[in-house]
Formats: sequence, structure tokens, C-alpha cells
Amino acid sequence: MLKSNGERLWDSLMQMAKVGATENGGNCRLALSAEDRAGRELFVSWCRELGMSIKVDRIGNLFAQREGRNGALPPVVMGSHLDTQPKGGRFDGIYGVLAGLEVVRSLRDQGIETEKPIEIAVWTNEEGARFTPAMLGSAVFTQVLPLEKALAIKDADGISMKEALEQSGYAGEEPLARAFDAYFEAHIEQGPILEDNGLPVGVVTGGQAICWLDVEVQGVPAHAGTTPMPLRKDALFGVGEMIAALEQLARDFAPKGLVTVGQLNIARSSRNTIPGRVAFTLDLRHHLDEEIAAMEASARDLIVTIATKRGLAVSVERHWLSPATPFDDACIAAVRNAVETLGYPHQDIVSGAGHDAIHLARHCPTTMVFIPCVGGLSHNEAEDALPDDVSKGCDVLLNAVLSRANRI
Amino acid sequence: MLKSNGERLWDSLMQMAKVGATENGGNCRLALSAEDRAGRELFVSWCRELGMSIKVDRIGNLFAQREGRNGALPPVVMGSHLDTQPKGGRFDGIYGVLAGLEVVRSLRDQGIETEKPIEIAVWTNEEGARFTPAMLGSAVFTQVLPLEKALAIKDADGISMKEALEQSGYAGEEPLARAFDAYFEAHIEQGPILEDNGLPVGVVTGGQAICWLDVEVQGVPAHAGTTPMPLRKDALFGVGEMIAALEQLARDFAPKGLVTVGQLNIARSSRNTIPGRVAFTLDLRHHLDEEIAAMEASARDLIVTIATKRGLAVSVERHWLSPATPFDDACIAAVRNAVETLGYPHQDIVSGAGHDAIHLARHCPTTMVFIPCVGGLSHNEAEDALPDDVSKGCDVLLNAVLSRANRI
Repeated sequence: MLKSNGERLWDSLMQMAKVGATENGGNCRLALSAEDRAGRELFVSWCRELGMSIKVDRIGNLFAQREGRNGALPPVVMGSHLDTQPKGGRFDGIYGVLAGLEVVRSLRDQGIETEKPIEIAVWTNEEGARFTPAMLGSAVFTQVLPLEKALAIKDADGISMKEALEQSGYAGEEPLARAFDAYFEAHIEQGPILEDNGLPVGVVTGGQAICWLDVEVQGVPAHAGTTPMPLRKDALFGVGEMIAALEQLARDFAPKGLVTVGQLNIARSSRNTIPGRVAFTLDLRHHLDEEIAAMEASARDLIVTIATKRGLAVSVERHWLSPATPFDDACIAAVRNAVETLGYPHQDIVSGAGHDAIHLARHCPTTMVFIPCVGGLSHNEAEDALPDDVSKGCDVLLNAVLSRANRI
Repeated sequence: MLKSNGERLWDSLMQMAKVGATENGGNCRLALSAEDRAGRELFVSWCRELGMSIKVDRIGNLFAQREGRNGALPPVVMGSHLDTQPKGGRFDGIYGVLAGLEVVRSLRDQGIETEKPIEIAVWTNEEGARFTPAMLGSAVFTQVLPLEKALAIKDADGISMKEALEQSGYAGEEPLARAFDAYFEAHIEQGPILEDNGLPVGVVTGGQAICWLDVEVQGVPAHAGTTPMPLRKDALFGVGEMIAALEQLARDFAPKGLVTVGQLNIARSSRNTIPGRVAFTLDLRHHLDEEIAAMEASARDLIVTIATKRGLAVSVERHWLSPATPFDDACIAAVRNAVETLGYPHQDIVSGAGHDAIHLARHCPTTMVFIPCVGGLSHNEAEDALPDDVSKGCDVLLNAVLSRANRI
């Protein structure tokens, strides 16, 4: 099996981390900012050294292509993103782009040509920190989000995507939605599972389903000092019971069901007023669509039951439902074959976070390769990964992509 | 037994309600505002018609005195406040002042003199809506709050009490903390108990103890999509269990124990982030000091136990403790005797809200007379009371004050 040059990859990661470096060791390269442009230019300079050609599409997605023996075939694409959170880390996204670069460098080192072209994609505004939604570039490329709508989206300063693309020089002409043979995205896990299990590589079988609900519970606000307990309609006591029941719901759907109440707001709250209206969000996740549906039904049922029992009015609205995204069997097999042949410890894993690969999976055969991140920490300046894991993940990517690129 | 003129009292209440009237039928007379001054002037004009003398102390508390046969004796004082919440009602405070006025009018009508002088007090800034804290004027009069400190307190526009008093013409010279024979405050209940029990009068035996705690629970913030349930330290799930246990605590101390979680904040909350830090307030009330101490101990114990079990860090700080305020036995007996002799249905009740009488109880023999308010509603433009209850409460005040004023 081929090996990549882990030290070179690490060096490139550390060089990229100097672009938009933050005080506490993290990175700030907001999408299409001067820092993001500088990061892209550094990447492009490395690609040009390899003789790769550069293309940019109309939403600023950047593609670096290495020719294949058969230029008529669609490319095998690797990639991720170079933009970061305002206080982001050095690996989230960047790893997938620079591992792709290291794959091409390794192929060149070893004089290996491929049947199909190989590309590295840098997707625009994956983080959603400057322009909402996240994964914007890949959504436009895969036509999940119409181009014109995306171009009109404005950042907090009122600057539109269109203006930001023109200002940064990344308003290109490459057509959207052109054919890919396959898409492979290497990424840090952004969770603690691989580290907890002591494994350097995760074979990603898909993205989990996500159901977001908005719950609002209405009781009667009243004076905390003058209202006897039996005469109260305390919305927060109702919500307390709901939260306890929702924690049990997660146990009922263990180990794959995830339940999070991330936001909770008491309307016009004061220390000595009985809460009259409480709103909270509910984030449900599972890797199976039928299970997410069952979780949603159970959550709705328990919320309404508790509210009704207490004489509280309640509304439960579905804010968003994203179905499970199974990745492509052949791509997963290519990754599994690579990691097994390399002899690296690994496990199957489902992606808990959103990634450009989730959009790409609707466009072409897709999968991902995960490596651990220290403490499961991400979207944080302290985000970190171990050089050995960085290296092993790239070896897996190299061999999986090579096999795909030569498969006729 | 004497009766007051309920119709006249109601008319005065409705005339006062025209001063600072709000669109939705409520009142806005913020302390020492032009509206508050106009309300005071209307009251003073009524008092002058009765030949009463007017005095103002250095924090703007206003006293209207009717002479007694023995001018050397300290006065029996009735009163409350004329200031309101920004969207306040027509009865909170005003009823206590104008019921006092009706008592004097009734005594005059019936040619009754008293041994001791009788006064009506209008306390400054009871609501705390313009200047914090609430019950400011009575706190200064009873020397709970030093005058100089109070004069320096500023409103939201940066205007100090001192400036507001000078601008309104209510910076007087009457000494603070002068002797009172007794203090009687009539007030709407601001809770639902009397209405729920169908009773026009409450014999108020004291003010309950209040314990305010600040709780902060610290877990680990993490990604809602990538963190398996067993690896989470979800601060909000811990708080959910605490809220459920605190609701049970109220049952353990039923019927007098009151428990309210009025405010809750998730630090840096987002829909798909596991809450890392949650702060909430806890309001505990009971009419007995030993029971409030037991409630606080139980609350602390259950909060720490739940946090510890879950591996969450927790802090519990006491924000404020106000001991129970037993009212004066002789004053309570005077009210009870009056209501029983009048034959009005009544019950003993503990004041759940703060009142000027709570401060006065530390200065002189004190009690209160409650009447129901519709739906228990207060601090609301829709605040309402029934004319028959308004009248009966005033009858009770009249006879209680008369007996006290003639008791040598």
C-alpha cells in the first residue's frame, strides 16, 4: 500500500494555520474575507507547483485538477473547506483540503498517473459563520440552493454573497453541478468517539438524520409571593418535567438516538414572577430515518401529555427535518479496503455534524474519512489533532482515491 | 359599628385613576413624575378640604394629619402609595391611601373626634419601577435605608432621587422615624386566595420570609450532533432534574411553602450545542423563619446531590434573605374585632408581596387589611377590585383605626 508524507502534510497544515491566526492558537478566516482569500491563494500556489489547473465556479467554489489518462472521464474529487469559525481551529475543513493536496503530492512523488482526473475542491462558506446557511457553496453546486438566492444572502454588515465574491475575485464561471465520479472528504470527527475508543480512523457510513422542533409552553404568569402552589400554571415547572422525560427519550433510543435542548427562553422573566411562557428548542438525531420519525413522535407525545396534565397550552413546530444520508457502498468499501490493507485500527462511524459531503452525497457517490480530534473539541481555537492520526487518515484517503481513480 | 361611604371611596378611586391614565384602563404614575405629582396634589386637595395639615419628609413621604384630642400622642397612621408600575392598575397602593382618606371623611361626617391624631401616609417610590429598590420611601423613614444613600440612587435616565425630589417640590423637612402609635395599611391582595375562597376581607397576620438563591451549573458544552449521550455533561439536563425536584420541594412544604424558578439562562446557547453552563434563580417563601431555613437547606442539598451525581460543578449563592415579618398582635386583634363585629366573611392571610407595612412593622405596631382583586391580577392595567369589597375593607379599616385611636 502507498503511504503519504505525513510530515509534509503536517507542515502544510501549520503553514495554513498562520493565515488568520488568532491569539489563542486558532484561526479566523471568515468566508471570502481577506484572510480566507489569503488561505485560498496559499493553497492555489501549492497546487500550481504540482502543475494542477485551477477553476472557480459562480459561487466561489475552487477546484484544482490533476489530469487523468482519460480526460473524458469525470474526476474523482477530494476536498472540504478553508473558511473557519470566528474563533475556529486549525483542522476543521482544512484537513480535508490539505490531505487532498498531500494525496496529489504523493502520487506525483511516486510517479503515479490515474485513469480519471483527480480534483481537490474548496467549498465556499461551509461554516455559515459569515453567510447563513452553512455548507452554502456545496449546496449551490449540488443545486440544493438556487444560485440567485445564494448570491442575495447578506452578511451581518449587509454585504451580499455576490458583492463578497466580486470583491474577493472568486466569482468564477465554471458550471455548477458538473459530473463527479466520486467525492471523498477527510475530516476531523468533531466528536469524542474515535478518541474514546483509541482508534485513528473512522469509516464514515453516512450522515445522521436531524429533526429540529420548536416548543412553546404557555401557562399563566403570576406573582411568586402571592400565588399558592395549587393555583399556579407554571410553564417552567412543566418544561422541567419535559426535559426530564426527553432525557429518558434519549435512553429509550440509545445508543444512536441523541437529544439536546440547546435553547430555552422564559418570556419577560423576572426573579419573582412565575414563568408564564417558556420556549425551547429540541434537537433530535439518529442515523435511521424510521428511528428519527419515532423519536419525533415520542417527543411530541410526551410534551403534549405533560402540558395537558398540567393545564398548560403547548405548541410543537417542526423547524427542520434533514433525512439520514447513507453514503455510497462502493466508496465506503474503497475506504474500508484501504484502512484494512494498511492495517490501521478503525471503526464504522456516522457523521454527527453537517459537512459538504452531505450535499455531495445527493450528487455523486460519496463518503468521508474521519480522524480523531483531541477531546472531541471543534469550533474552538484549542481544536487539535495528533500528527500520527493526520498521517494515517491521509494514507487511507490516498489509497481509497487511487483505487477509485483507476476503477474503469 | 360605623360604616364608611363606599360609593364616595369608589368615586375618589376613579377620579385618581384619571391621573396618568393609560390606554388600556390602567395607570402610569412613576414615582415623582409629573403624573405622580398630579396624583399627590389631587390627594392633598381632598385632605385640605377636610382641614388636615400636610407634612413632607426629606425622602418625599407625604403625611396628612387630622388632629386628635391629645396632640401630644403619636398618631395612628394609615396609608400606602400613589405611585404605580409603568403599566399599573388603579388599586395597588392607591386603595390604602384613599381608604385612609375615606376613614377621615367618615369620621368627619359622623362628628367623631379621636384621642390620638390620625394620619394618612403616602410613601415615596413604593413600586421600585423608577428608582430601585422598591418600598424606598418607607425604608428611609424607618431607617432601613440611609437617607444619603437613597438620595443618590438614580433612575434609568440618570436623574437622582435628590434631583427628582427637588424638581417635584417634594423635598420636605419633616423628621424621619418619628413615633407612630400604629400603622394600618389597606391593600388589594395581589393574589387569588380571597377571591378563590369567596371572602371580601383578609386579616393579615404578617409578611412571609423570602429566600433568593442564585444557582449556576457547569457542565461541558459540546456539539449536539457528534457527542454520544453517555459522554455528555449536559448542564440543562441536570437543571431539568433540579427543577422537577424543586417542584416536589414545594409539595413537601405545602401549603405555605412557595417555590419559583423565575429566570434561567443558558450561556452562549445555540440550537445544536449541548448546554455547558446554566444559571437559574430560585425564590423560596414561607411564613415561618424556621421553615424557610429548612426549605433553603433542602434546596441546596437536592441541587448539589443532583449535580454531583451527574459530574456537574455547581454553585449556590444566597442573593437575599428577608425574614418573616409577624404583624402586631394588638393591631391584628383590632382588625379581627372590626371584621367580626361587622359580620363580614374573612380569613387570616399572610402577605405574599412586599409592602411599606413590612418596613413599618419594624418601627411601630403594624398590620394590614386585604381585599380581593379580580383574578388575583396586579401590576397590570387590567387590575380590578369589586366596589363591595372596596367598601367592606374600608369599613374594617375605619373601625380598627378608630378603636386604636381612642385606646389610651
